[in-house]
Amino acid sequence: MATTPQWIMVGGDGPESYSQHSSYQRALWETAKEKMNEAISAKLSLDLISDRFCVADFGCASGPNTFVAVQNIIDAVEDKYRKETGQNPAENIEFQVLFNDFSTNDFNTLFQALPPGRRYYSAGVPGSFFGRVLPKHSFHIGVISYAFHFTSKNPKGITDRDSPLWNKDVHCTGFNEAVKKAYLDQYSADTKNLLDARAEELVPGGLMLILGSGLRDGVKISETAKGIMMDFIGASLNDLAQQGVIEQDKVDSFSTPLYVAEEGELRQIIKENGKFTIEAFEDIIHPNEELPSDPKILAVSFRASFGAFLSAYFGEDTMTKVFELVEVKARKEFSKIQNAKPGMQYLIVLRKN
Amino acid sequence: MATTPQWIMVGGDGPESYSQHSSYQRALWETAKEKMNEAISAKLSLDLISDRFCVADFGCASGPNTFVAVQNIIDAVEDKYRKETGQNPAENIEFQVLFNDFSTNDFNTLFQALPPGRRYYSAGVPGSFFGRVLPKHSFHIGVISYAFHFTSKNPKGITDRDSPLWNKDVHCTGFNEAVKKAYLDQYSADTKNLLDARAEELVPGGLMLILGSGLRDGVKISETAKGIMMDFIGASLNDLAQQGVIEQDKVDSFSTPLYVAEEGELRQIIKENGKFTIEAFEDIIHPNEELPSDPKILAVSFRASFGAFLSAYFGEDTMTKVFELVEVKARKEFSKIQNAKPGMQYLIVLRKN
Repeated sequence: MATTPQWIMVGGDGPESYSQHSSYQRALWETAKEKMNEAISAKLSLDLISDRFCVADFGCASGPNTFVAVQNIIDAVEDKYRKETGQNPAENIEFQVLFNDFSTNDFNTLFQALPPGRRYYSAGVPGSFFGRVLPKHSFHIGVISYAFHFTSKNPKGITDRDSPLWNKDVHCTGFNEAVKKAYLDQYSADTKNLLDARAEELVPGGLMLILGSGLRDGVKISETAKGIMMDFIGASLNDLAQQGVIEQDKVDSFSTPLYVAEEGELRQIIKENGKFTIEAFEDIIHPNEELPSDPKILAVSFRASFGAFLSAYFGEDTMTKVFELVEVKARKEFSKIQNAKPGMQYLIVLRKN
Repeated sequence: MATTPQWIMVGGDGPESYSQHSSYQRALWETAKEKMNEAISAKLSLDLISDRFCVADFGCASGPNTFVAVQNIIDAVEDKYRKETGQNPAENIEFQVLFNDFSTNDFNTLFQALPPGRRYYSAGVPGSFFGRVLPKHSFHIGVISYAFHFTSKNPKGITDRDSPLWNKDVHCTGFNEAVKKAYLDQYSADTKNLLDARAEELVPGGLMLILGSGLRDGVKISETAKGIMMDFIGASLNDLAQQGVIEQDKVDSFSTPLYVAEEGELRQIIKENGKFTIEAFEDIIHPNEELPSDPKILAVSFRASFGAFLSAYFGEDTMTKVFELVEVKARKEFSKIQNAKPGMQYLIVLRKN
């Protein structure tokens, strides 16, 4: 699954694009780091920092972004410990990082890319994060980076042409109320399972840090730049079907197993689940900085996020063609994208009750 | 590294050989299971079996043998718990298995082969087992299956033509006293590091179960069937060099980073290390059952153990040719193999001091 952040490059087309795109990545992580540091400094109980401290990344993919995320957390824990005890964390704390993703994730690549000189023990934890993957009380801080919008599957009926819920589009434009409700119900059930599992695996008082992409209340995904881009992906697939490059049926039965939730929906799900208290829920970047300011880089960004998923379904060639068309559409309608309603890049800090 | 048991098939040549060979595998594990069960029943303190129980396999390779080994251990722990407390382990204990091997091990294959219906959480732990790979007090029982004979590297000088320690052979025939001492020194240093690391990672009172292949005191490896077979591998490599298939220099610089220790040497190393008490040191099968009784199966067995290692150095084609020649030699000198001095298949049970 594409568990890399929305705006982060994983497959590029030329060093220039990459380097341009890369500045978004750095800016995002720099701000996220600051916010995570603040959250850990203010919300993590010092009692939890003892001789052994475990950090877990759920939906880690195969690197390298996970290494940045977990190092940020370890740095923040060490800072807090140093400031509040006056002692050297390197002498007193052994860190362990648990890297979780599906058992089909490329753990070989992850393990071989582990940063040299890291000051933590590593373990890979295979399995779907919608269920239990660790024994009780296994970790102190968990992180989910841009993977909190996934559902375990497409809602029932969504890809079935005979269903009243049939959503012809990849995700957005045809997103009527019934379809939206089907997605939200699926997302709500899956996310509650995810929270139940993490609540058992976390030590009492432990924190979950959730970085992700969401919507402000009342904003439809199709009104945001992200939604417009996803519709371009859908439209490009339909273009290719009309050209006979791929089959229309295959396009019609394709849907993305994710739901970009509104802030109020996220708060409601967490509240109904009841296992965690929301300690913070904040924007990590200003909406103006949310998107690359160039259609090409924008297309590259979305290929980074959705390319692997499309490749798996339609093949590499079709995926490449899709994003060529997406770039053309993005260029043509760039003012629409620039005037779209803002999305939201959030950090949610949860403390286990 | 070839961390699969000496007599266990990993790459075969035809279903018939495999099925014949496979009976050795089953017999070995059946006996090992019994002995491990006894050891756990008698030597594991009931106090250690609480709500969370961790088993770690060091040098697990990519399966499937590791799954048999860890399931044996879990079964034995559950049996003991059931008998001594009258309670149902499934209701009270969460098991976790930590699978360790080099970070270049094929963890993807391992994770995708995890047995369906298993009643344990899984994690892969990448890193050399000669050093620390886990935080302190991470596991309750560790197992090393046929990987306890490895050294971290070839002893200095062994592959250097100008060194007095130069060992022209792959391992055995040229094994003079100075070469043997160089191997033993390397093995002793590496194994003490391994024991130091495990002693820190084990909970107090925890056990290490070590299954492996060794020698009775005073027996030279070259006098055993295993040594004779290793010499056949060396001789076959030299045959291929003389035929011009591979370069003589490459053969001369090839050595196996392992040392098959005598029982007395193993006891001495463990005693000098001082972190563990030997609770049991026993044969797991009768020497007569140690070897397949057919030259073809014997060659297949050794290909299973050494094939990957030879492939990495000489390439797949050469490896295949080597074992064709090994089979011819084994057939020709089968009576020598049958009359060789017995080796030893051991189970060592160590308790952390």
